Parts: sequence; C-alpha cells; structure tokens
Amino acid sequence: MARSLPGAVRIVEVGPRDGLQNEAKGVATADKIRLIERLAAAGLPHVEMTSFVNPKWIPPLADAFEVATGVRKKPGVVYSALVPNLKGYERAREAGIDTCVLFLSASETHSRKNINKSVAEALEAYREVAAAALADGKALRAYISTVFGCPYEGEVPVAATIDIARALLDMGVAEVSLGDTTGLGTPGQVEAYLSSIFAALPRERFACHFHDTRGTALVNALVALEQGVTTLDASVGGLGGCPYAPGATGNLATDDLLYMLDALGIETGVDREGVLEITRWICRDVLGIDIPSRYAKAELAARGRDAAKESAASA
Amino acid sequence: MARSLPGAVRIVEVGPRDGLQNEAKGVATADKIRLIERLAAAGLPHVEMTSFVNPKWIPPLADAFEVATGVRKKPGVVYSALVPNLKGYERAREAGIDTCVLFLSASETHSRKNINKSVAEALEAYREVAAAALADGKALRAYISTVFGCPYEGEVPVAATIDIARALLDMGVAEVSLGDTTGLGTPGQVEAYLSSIFAALPRERFACHFHDTRGTALVNALVALEQGVTTLDASVGGLGGCPYAPGATGNLATDDLLYMLDALGIETGVDREGVLEITRWICRDVLGIDIPSRYAKAELAARGRDAAKESAASA
Repeated sequence: MARSLPGAVRIVEVGPRDGLQNEAKGVATADKIRLIERLAAAGLPHVEMTSFVNPKWIPPLADAFEVATGVRKKPGVVYSALVPNLKGYERAREAGIDTCVLFLSASETHSRKNINKSVAEALEAYREVAAAALADGKALRAYISTVFGCPYEGEVPVAATIDIARALLDMGVAEVSLGDTTGLGTPGQVEAYLSSIFAALPRERFACHFHDTRGTALVNALVALEQGVTTLDASVGGLGGCPYAPGATGNLATDDLLYMLDALGIETGVDREGVLEITRWICRDVLGIDIPSRYAKAELAARGRDAAKESAASA
Repeated sequence: MARSLPGAVRIVEVGPRDGLQNEAKGVATADKIRLIERLAAAGLPHVEMTSFVNPKWIPPLADAFEVATGVRKKPGVVYSALVPNLKGYERAREAGIDTCVLFLSASETHSRKNINKSVAEALEAYREVAAAALADGKALRAYISTVFGCPYEGEVPVAATIDIARALLDMGVAEVSLGDTTGLGTPGQVEAYLSSIFAALPRERFACHFHDTRGTALVNALVALEQGVTTLDASVGGLGGCPYAPGATGNLATDDLLYMLDALGIETGVDREGVLEITRWICRDVLGIDIPSRYAKAELAARGRDAAKESAASA
C-alpha cells in the first residue's frame, strides 16, 4: 500500500485463555492442551495459555496448572499465562510459565468492578509480582483494559493510559497490550491515541488488543499498523472477548486478521490454512458453536458446497 | 484523522432490494414499503427499492411494481430500482422510477453465469435501455460486480473494470458502483485498484459496494474514503449480499458504517439511532433472524440488560 506498513507482524494468540475462559460449556483439559499445541504448530509465535486467577472467579480456568504443565512446548514459541497477584504468580511459576501477564484497567470504575482495586492499588500490588517474576528470570507482559472507552465512564483520557503504561514499563514489563475491552474504539480515535502514547513512550513496547464488538476490530488493526504497531493480539475463530453480551461479537479473529495481513504481504509466519482447520475443529467439534470469524465462516461454507454456486445474482 | 478523509459521505441504502431479494421467508409487500419509508425518514438520501427483473429469476421481488408505487416518497430522497433490460425498464417507468440501476460484471465468467450474457453483450443491451431512460429524463446508476475478485476467475484485471466503467459513463450513467461481490477485496488491493481507476476516470462518478464476507468491508470502506470516494452502498442491519452461502456474512451494514463515520466526524445526514431501531424491527419482528450487523447486535444487547454487566472480566 502507499501508506507505511510494517513488513512483519507478530500475532499473540489469546484464544486458549481469552477465548475459552467464559465458555459456559466446559472444555476438557485435553482439548485445551491440544488447542495450544495446534496453534503453536500452525506458526503462532506466542500463545496465551490460561490464567492463574482464583478458580472461584473463573471456574473454566480451574485447570490452569494441568493445562500449563500438559502442553508439549515447541522451541521458540512463547507460552504465557495471566497472573492476578503474588499467589497466582507462585502457581504460575510452579507450572513452569516463562512469560507472566499482568492485567489492569485505564478506567477507575472498570478497575474497581473488574479486579476490586483502584488503578493505583493494582499498580502497587503488581510491583511486588513483577519484582518476584523478574528475580526468577521471567518475562512480563501486561494488558491495559478500556484504553479506547469504558462501559461505565465512556471516554478514558489517553493520559491515564500513558501514566499506567509508564509505570508498567518502569517495573520491568516488556510489552504492554492496549485493550479495547468493549470494542468502542474507532479508527480516528485509535490513530490519535496511539500517536499520543508513542510520543511519550517507545512504540516497540506496545501491542494492541482489539475487540470486534461494533465491527471495528480489523479497521482499527490497520490503523495501528500504520502507527507502527507490530504486535497484535487475536483469538482463533474470534472466540471470546465479550462474555457478558450473549451473541455479541468479541475478539478480533486470528483468521480475519491473517486474511488481511496475507493480502497486504505482511509476514506473520502463520499458516492460515492451518488456523482455519483449528477454527473448524474448536468451534464445531469441541464447542459446538457457530464460528464467529467471518473469514473462516465464508471459507468453510465455500468448501462445503459446489463452488459454482458462490456466484450471487446480485451486485 | 491525519489522513485525508471526506467531510461528508452519501450512503446508498440497498437493504430493501439487495437485503431482501434472497430472503427465503417471503416479506409482505406492506413491510417492504414500510422499510423503505422508514429508511428515508431516518435520513438515508438514496434508497434502492426493488428490482424489475423477471419474477421467474427472483420470486421475492415479484411485487416490484406494488412496492415502487406503494411508497409515499419523501422529497429530496432518491428512490432507485434495478432494470435488467428494456422490458424491465418499461415496467420501472410505469412504476414511476426516476433512477434506474443497470448491473453487469467485470468478469466474463461471472457475467455469463449471472446474466447469461458476455460483458460486451451486456453493455450492448444496456445501450438501448440507457438511451430510452435518458430520453424519458431518468437518471442512471450502474453496478459493476466482481471488481475485486471473481469466484470463478480469481483476480479480475482492473483494466476490465476501467473499460466497462468508461463505456457506462459514455452511455450516460451518472454513477458507477464498484462491487466486491463475494467479499474478496482487501485494503491494499482496494487502494491500488481505486487509484488506477481514478487515474483514468473521474472519481466523483464512483461509489463502492463492499461485502463483509471475509470481514474486510469496513476497512475497505475506510480505504475507499481515503481514495476520495464519497458514496458508499450499505444495507440496513447488514442484510443480504451473499445469498448462496448460508450463514456467511453479506453486505456492509449501514449500522456498522454509521458507527465508524459518526466517530470520524464525517457527515451523513442519517440518524444512527433511527437506523438501529429499523434494524431491530426488520431483523427481529419481520424476518425473525439474528442481526448480522455487529454494531446493532452489541448496542441492542447492551440496552437489553443491566449495563453494569457490560464490564468483562477480561482484557
């Protein structure tokens, strides 16, 4: 394209955690392990496996230890897990997790409702976690939620995100993922926010995590690439991302993202055909749900019928 | 945004025709009329009402005459209908249609399968229709299908589109809508194709008609705006657009497009709240289907439950 785009993008695959954490239908631990192994085999360079939160909060992730220890790891792939506090970190360490993911919110109200702490309290608590993890030689990643809008507060000042991100980087976090938690982000806003953030902090330390709740995930991803972002979070098949709104669209689908990136000639190292087959398997065979990814839905529908019928008697 | 975008965009609402022409469940003529009237009332400046094709081809549109004559027209709004040939034009004229829409394909194979004519034969036949319509003081619009890819031929050379568009403009067509019929278009390609087309022909004579089959409709729309396109086709709720792939996504949703354009500060004159209510009504009350538009789905879900639950325990 005429615009400036990166030559390569790293996709952080969050499906096994973000995609499955709110599945009402329990997923067998063996299927979770298989999902993670298949995603790594398809070329995803980073797979977020699970979360070491208290199982009381998110029962579907109660098997975090079994998942993390059950995966046969592929050399060169990063396997991460969320850690909410020191206790969670200790369980993650026992499970051999090398990259720990902290999570907090740019919005005070969302922070209190989501993790029952103010933003300052969350940062304070994570300082201890980060110090312990770094002392153990672990890498750190962090999510900032509601960067592009909060369901309670509406617009969230970008200055709040910059302050939090700076604090995270100062405590040794290697990569901060900017989350559009409820999919309120729009292209002009994403451009303006990223431009402000990158004027204050080094852009190579940031990833973006877009939700497709209002249809803008892919266009926001393109805008982020133009702003020099080279790491994007996505979820196989588009699983997860908006658990409290049944039927609403959630995470940016790895499949949809790959269709665009491949067409733009941007390297990912990921086998799109392989991901498509994983999407078919996890959505249809394991979960028994409609496939959220539009690309996967269309491709699988096209293959499942006479290709000659694809022609529509319409413009 | 830093990029150059138009200050205003005209949305051509194609839901009543493109959205309903393949609905297996018949829609009552009175509901079609109500849909058209409500869309115009919500501020859509151009509503494509129906198609005067032979009812043998598309039975759901057999009531074209009743629809076109039944609508109470709002001054200033353009009401158009598709005309496949001279006979269709004569029926459209009897029904008082002021803007006639021709349709053909950039791909030879798609043209033969869709309208049983070569591209040259289609153009030849339309010359007669165009001359008759212009003599009667009608305005002409035209769709070129498969501009950004053909299900049979794959890539379609942009030179073919330029030749057809030039022929259409030469025969008096006021606006040519470039159709991504099976949603194969991607941002880099759309940028390159539009740039080539607009190097040869005046950009203000073109609209774009994107399908969301592979998730790229909204991002392609943004790229088209950057290329100076100021008219975009869209369908209320995202209805229609891909009739032969059950479950696959179809037309760019008017709702999703409005969410992005409103956020970008681009004027449309359309009441997004009004469109949302029309989407709810046509999808749920009339058709009894899930809403294809992600924006409408999320907004209606959010309103239908305690807003405090929108907070997701996730990044």
